[in-house]
Amino acid sequence: MPLLVMKFGGTSVADPARIRNAAEKVAREVEGGFDVIVIVSAMAGKTNELVGWVSGISPLYDAREYDAVVSSGENVTAGLMALTLQEMDVPARSWQGWQVPLRTSSAHGAARILDIPRQAIDAKFAEGMRVAVVAGFQGISPEGRITTLGRGGSDTTAVAFAAAFDATRCDIYTDVDGVYTTDPRISRKARKLDRITYEEMLELASLGAKVLQTRSVELAMRYKVPLRVLSSFEQTDESSGTILCDEEEIMESRVVSGIAHSRDEAKMSLMQVADKPGIAAAIFGPLADAGVNVDMIVQNISEEGHTDMTFSCPVDQVARAEKAILAARERGSFRFGELVADTDVAKISVVGIGMRSHAGVAARMFEALAREGININVITTSEIKISVLIDRKYMELAVQTLHDAFELDKAS
Amino acid sequence: MPLLVMKFGGTSVADPARIRNAAEKVAREVEGGFDVIVIVSAMAGKTNELVGWVSGISPLYDAREYDAVVSSGENVTAGLMALTLQEMDVPARSWQGWQVPLRTSSAHGAARILDIPRQAIDAKFAEGMRVAVVAGFQGISPEGRITTLGRGGSDTTAVAFAAAFDATRCDIYTDVDGVYTTDPRISRKARKLDRITYEEMLELASLGAKVLQTRSVELAMRYKVPLRVLSSFEQTDESSGTILCDEEEIMESRVVSGIAHSRDEAKMSLMQVADKPGIAAAIFGPLADAGVNVDMIVQNISEEGHTDMTFSCPVDQVARAEKAILAARERGSFRFGELVADTDVAKISVVGIGMRSHAGVAARMFEALAREGININVITTSEIKISVLIDRKYMELAVQTLHDAFELDKAS
Repeated sequence: MPLLVMKFGGTSVADPARIRNAAEKVAREVEGGFDVIVIVSAMAGKTNELVGWVSGISPLYDAREYDAVVSSGENVTAGLMALTLQEMDVPARSWQGWQVPLRTSSAHGAARILDIPRQAIDAKFAEGMRVAVVAGFQGISPEGRITTLGRGGSDTTAVAFAAAFDATRCDIYTDVDGVYTTDPRISRKARKLDRITYEEMLELASLGAKVLQTRSVELAMRYKVPLRVLSSFEQTDESSGTILCDEEEIMESRVVSGIAHSRDEAKMSLMQVADKPGIAAAIFGPLADAGVNVDMIVQNISEEGHTDMTFSCPVDQVARAEKAILAARERGSFRFGELVADTDVAKISVVGIGMRSHAGVAARMFEALAREGININVITTSEIKISVLIDRKYMELAVQTLHDAFELDKAS
Repeated sequence: MPLLVMKFGGTSVADPARIRNAAEKVAREVEGGFDVIVIVSAMAGKTNELVGWVSGISPLYDAREYDAVVSSGENVTAGLMALTLQEMDVPARSWQGWQVPLRTSSAHGAARILDIPRQAIDAKFAEGMRVAVVAGFQGISPEGRITTLGRGGSDTTAVAFAAAFDATRCDIYTDVDGVYTTDPRISRKARKLDRITYEEMLELASLGAKVLQTRSVELAMRYKVPLRVLSSFEQTDESSGTILCDEEEIMESRVVSGIAHSRDEAKMSLMQVADKPGIAAAIFGPLADAGVNVDMIVQNISEEGHTDMTFSCPVDQVARAEKAILAARERGSFRFGELVADTDVAKISVVGIGMRSHAGVAARMFEALAREGININVITTSEIKISVLIDRKYMELAVQTLHDAFELDKAS
């Protein structure tokens, strides 16, 4: 029988009524002829409550005990979902991570999935069970202790099950109805995409479009799991939501698929750096050692043996970056005049798989921003993405301008 | 190293502050040289919340899913207790039932403990762990599913661990400071007992003194586990609480140890029953088939071929008992004039191991009640107990009168 994986996040199972609503979506797929594996998160707020208790006892908690406590929320939802399905005459049972067993590494709090044996669940499907409800976010370590996969890990659980069970598709039910060309709160012209490639989604996810956990998209890409994002709170059917798939499955790919934005970057500038060979290594080596995730780097043209060096990093790493740079100067690694941190910036990115084969995207982007008088501070590019750092006050304007410039409001 | 089992109930671990208070009691025993196995209940109210969700989905829920959901409360407390002990520099870790593994029967919701292998926990003690925190109330079935032992099952878990690990003692920390000669809310003269035999405690527990789960006392008696009941909310030491032990360990046993009362019984009378051989079987057979727990039975002297038959049963089984009796009359099994149910009664019991060797207890009891004008409806006795059914309005007076009559306020 064809098999579907359906994942419901915390807001989709926040109380018994919503669990029933989710169960109805599952029952409809069973009626349609699918066996289903349902992956559930904890009821909204429960995980935070548990994390709060653990952190309250000690900021330096034992991650093994953290996992044992925090995983309990998913177990509750799994049982309640199985009971609700049974009440609707759908043969179902719940599985906790260790019962499957979903085997992981021992990296408590951020464990990697090693193996999902199919035997136990397949045997129940063979006996007539139609739905296996599995507690997301958790597994069991080689030492027999409970592990968790990190926040948002239920998305990863869902994709891993879809890969292990050769699922027809993995449907991620959430509180938005799909992936948009940009944030609908910023541009009213934002349009829901029917399809998007894994690679584009990865760029969008890491750039601040918080629909899916990055790891789950990477996993889906590696195992070619068709992944669909859709809403728990609307009537849904075969055509709902956004499907993540391989490039080949998108007939005519657009040059640009979406515009992402992020307020989480800061711009740091070292003024009057003595320009000599090896200066970049001297600066960015200590930053890497200090665990600062440097994203964009720009070096000005050198004048009279001096240059300005600008880079971006997450806002919450600014203090750490400053400390590392000042310590390096202290040690005499390099000299500079001034260190300026600017947290009043935003990163705007244009993402599209079509950029690989189409030139002129960058020019079109820069022209559009220039027409609105928006100054670009720093630029970075990848094969399918161009990002710029601009003053934060222009963020909304830049998103709207670029959305228009690439005509993203029009269906391809 | 000598080993102690310490059990903390729901009110004793109701929030992080109370968990810390309990952990301090554990740490003190570790300092005193004990290895400790701590059995914890769910935080007060949590199990009821979970049961409410399950019952809300369906009154006819799958008991296997019920167990998977309801057991999660204890897992949370176990992890939080282990973290709190670690924070106090006591080497500790948590164990869920399936990790021990505590093996049980498959009778979900009321499973029997089959086996508690020591290997896993002993290995950790050998490595230097001083406290194993075990989630109470739960185990794993031969099918690999989570089971629960029934409400109050954490007491039973504690005693079973004490037996399996040859514990020096099993301390049950609760919200009362011991076992009393009677309910202190009814008689201000009630006195805490230093020691009581398992058998007396069993009679008291089944008679409405809700300090310990009956099963846990039976288990303690069978394996001769010294069991102590004491308060979580007071400073405690070696001499605190009440110790349950064998008869031989009580130097001079009293004739009467305690007075119990229960408002949960109803009195049912069948008037004008045609008295013929086999009439008792004809009445009580159908009641047993209907699952009615008949406690006391009295048959009046027969007059002109008719008699009155009176029995008691739990108040919540009255409707079921009436239905069974009327159906039996319908079938022509027996005839009677009238069926009268009286729920306005109370059962008062005098319990004492010394009754075995001392005559005159019943006479003293009946005289004391008669002096106060309290009419006795029904009487039943066992080797160490005499119970009477009286009008409910006399309950408090009867308890106080008997407490005085047997001089229970005086230390033996």
